Amino acid sequence: MSLDYKRELESAAKNMILVHEPDVLMQMIVRMIVHKVKVRHAGILLYDEDKDTYILTVSRGSVGLKIPKGFARMDSDNPLIRLFRGRVDKKIFHNGALVYPVAKKMLHKNISGDTKQLLKAALYQMEIFETVACIPSYFRQDLLGILLLGSKRNDRKFAKDELNFFVALASDVAMAIRNARLFRELELELDKKKRLFIHTTVALAAAIDAKDHYTHGHTSRVVHLSLEIAKKLMQKNKSVFDEKFLENLHIAGLLHDIGKIAIPESILNKEGPLNDEEKKRMEEHPLRGVTILEPIKELEDAVLGVKYHHEKYDGSGYPEGLKGDKIPLIASIISVADTFDAIITNRPYHQALSKKEAVEEIERVSGKQLHPQVATALLELFREGKI
Amino acid sequence: MSLDYKRELESAAKNMILVHEPDVLMQMIVRMIVHKVKVRHAGILLYDEDKDTYILTVSRGSVGLKIPKGFARMDSDNPLIRLFRGRVDKKIFHNGALVYPVAKKMLHKNISGDTKQLLKAALYQMEIFETVACIPSYFRQDLLGILLLGSKRNDRKFAKDELNFFVALASDVAMAIRNARLFRELELELDKKKRLFIHTTVALAAAIDAKDHYTHGHTSRVVHLSLEIAKKLMQKNKSVFDEKFLENLHIAGLLHDIGKIAIPESILNKEGPLNDEEKKRMEEHPLRGVTILEPIKELEDAVLGVKYHHEKYDGSGYPEGLKGDKIPLIASIISVADTFDAIITNRPYHQALSKKEAVEEIERVSGKQLHPQVATALLELFREGKI
Repeated sequence: MSLDYKRELESAAKNMILVHEPDVLMQMIVRMIVHKVKVRHAGILLYDEDKDTYILTVSRGSVGLKIPKGFARMDSDNPLIRLFRGRVDKKIFHNGALVYPVAKKMLHKNISGDTKQLLKAALYQMEIFETVACIPSYFRQDLLGILLLGSKRNDRKFAKDELNFFVALASDVAMAIRNARLFRELELELDKKKRLFIHTTVALAAAIDAKDHYTHGHTSRVVHLSLEIAKKLMQKNKSVFDEKFLENLHIAGLLHDIGKIAIPESILNKEGPLNDEEKKRMEEHPLRGVTILEPIKELEDAVLGVKYHHEKYDGSGYPEGLKGDKIPLIASIISVADTFDAIITNRPYHQALSKKEAVEEIERVSGKQLHPQVATALLELFREGKI
Repeated sequence: MSLDYKRELESAAKNMILVHEPDVLMQMIVRMIVHKVKVRHAGILLYDEDKDTYILTVSRGSVGLKIPKGFARMDSDNPLIRLFRGRVDKKIFHNGALVYPVAKKMLHKNISGDTKQLLKAALYQMEIFETVACIPSYFRQDLLGILLLGSKRNDRKFAKDELNFFVALASDVAMAIRNARLFRELELELDKKKRLFIHTTVALAAAIDAKDHYTHGHTSRVVHLSLEIAKKLMQKNKSVFDEKFLENLHIAGLLHDIGKIAIPESILNKEGPLNDEEKKRMEEHPLRGVTILEPIKELEDAVLGVKYHHEKYDGSGYPEGLKGDKIPLIASIISVADTFDAIITNRPYHQALSKKEAVEEIERVSGKQLHPQVATALLELFREGKI
């Protein structure tokens, strides 16, 4: 008897561990069993936790003998399931597997009446599915699934070492499924936390935004525009940013005006121009933002955008009067988006202009107030009709 | 030749997949190899990405022959590493493994001069470590580690199927290491995101807190006290809460006054009592908080604490006048913590009282304004000197 398919199947089972979506690989395994072991059909019953049911997930075989997927569902009352889940006499199994001709003989041996009843019902199930061997997969005490094998195409029996090999294979499959589930759970959890963070920041930033009557909706527009500018810059020079940069830009955009929470409403919402004292208070907002966010180590890079978004390319900005490329790019991007949005909305000191007029203004101050490449990116977005 | 250790080692290697800290299991594997295969010593060289070096991570063997851990470090220049990493003539290996007596003979065979040079240097390395077989572990193209085996204690050669088995084992180990690293990375990422969320919420809540001159530091004290009360309630009745409840309570505590951001500063910081109109505006803050947080699906349960933290047990609270157990427990807990903190701090309408006086007041209104069991938990915390 040859186990020449052994190595191929083993390596497929091992690879499942690193493919964290084992469905595809289980299909491959079943297909390989059908072809290499030359059985009439093969399938895998997989446990569905939500439904407490075993569902035929993959099934392959000669035409007519393939059990329709989703057709076979076995709940915990099913005799086959009860047999593998329960504490029955181990001797009805071959090394843990239920093999039809072996088990059939057991009906006439010395086993308890209950086990005999259950076994009879299970064998009847196997007859319906034309299944010769059922190989269970456990993780610890839990039955994760059952590999179902039809008869061999040459009608020979399964050899002992073949069955042993399938038992080992089924345990690999169980391990892979378990591992994939743990991964999936972790990934879902991570996704959830990411969304929670962004959503909460958005909500709180919007609430703070709403305090300043003149800048309603400003934050979300600045975020959107900043990200568009960054993507435009990336088109030209791929190496400038990575995912992390975009994530930081997103956060910095959301929080760039967070320091305004520390500015009195009377200044924030004053109609008409601010006096020198008020202007000074207002210009404190980037550093107030830094004070709020500084304790959060993970936001270190994003905070640069908050701190320097009122710096100007020619050095005439605040709080530090940084010049040119000394200003972190994250801040230069927010600055352009912020300036553009200020021009197209009503402010105490001016009426809203059209986007076209705003773009002309941006072009005029590019290289003076604003970083020239960043300003150019915005101009291009406008020309392409994207803003 | 017997491979009677095979099953044990195989099952150990498989189990590594689910133990996401493989160090312990690698140690076990090496120890088992030494004992079962009866080699003089065995060790694993593991790749350290940060240092671009292979470090002897575990090593076991007869006294004197055990290579001191951390002693053996091989960088990418080491001939042994270059041999396994490079594209050398495959025929110097036995099924991918470098076996001393086999490889030694190769020096006189038809291999390129470069390979011969490298092989000579590698064999010299093996002599130094008294190593008879080096079995590499790859993940895709990357050399993750090398299993080093000393000679057998009975001085026999390794049989072909033994070597084949070790090659398969080494590939299991590589798979387990790779899998564990992916898990570790995901877990670290998840931890980071959790911290980021909590830290940002803390920072923003504190900033909003700071707007209300009377309640500086109030939020963090309410969070602390609420969590202490919940733990006290859990001591009495384990089934009341789970981790998720505590997490929601933490978030709800942080955000319970978030709606105050929508209340004018003139009302928030008014000295002396509020008039009816102002009081009405002030009492809007729980529902304003709900409006801010409502879009965040993940905060659904926490929002109940924000919405109902001004409800009273006897139904005299706001916004809905809920009574008794109709008030979500999360809100009843925040309510007790909030009330206690209000009493012990200066407010526009009263001077701060001592903790003892505050506890007496809580006792007096327990079952009227406040949920009796929750109030009792606070009284017990006070008696135990915990608050």
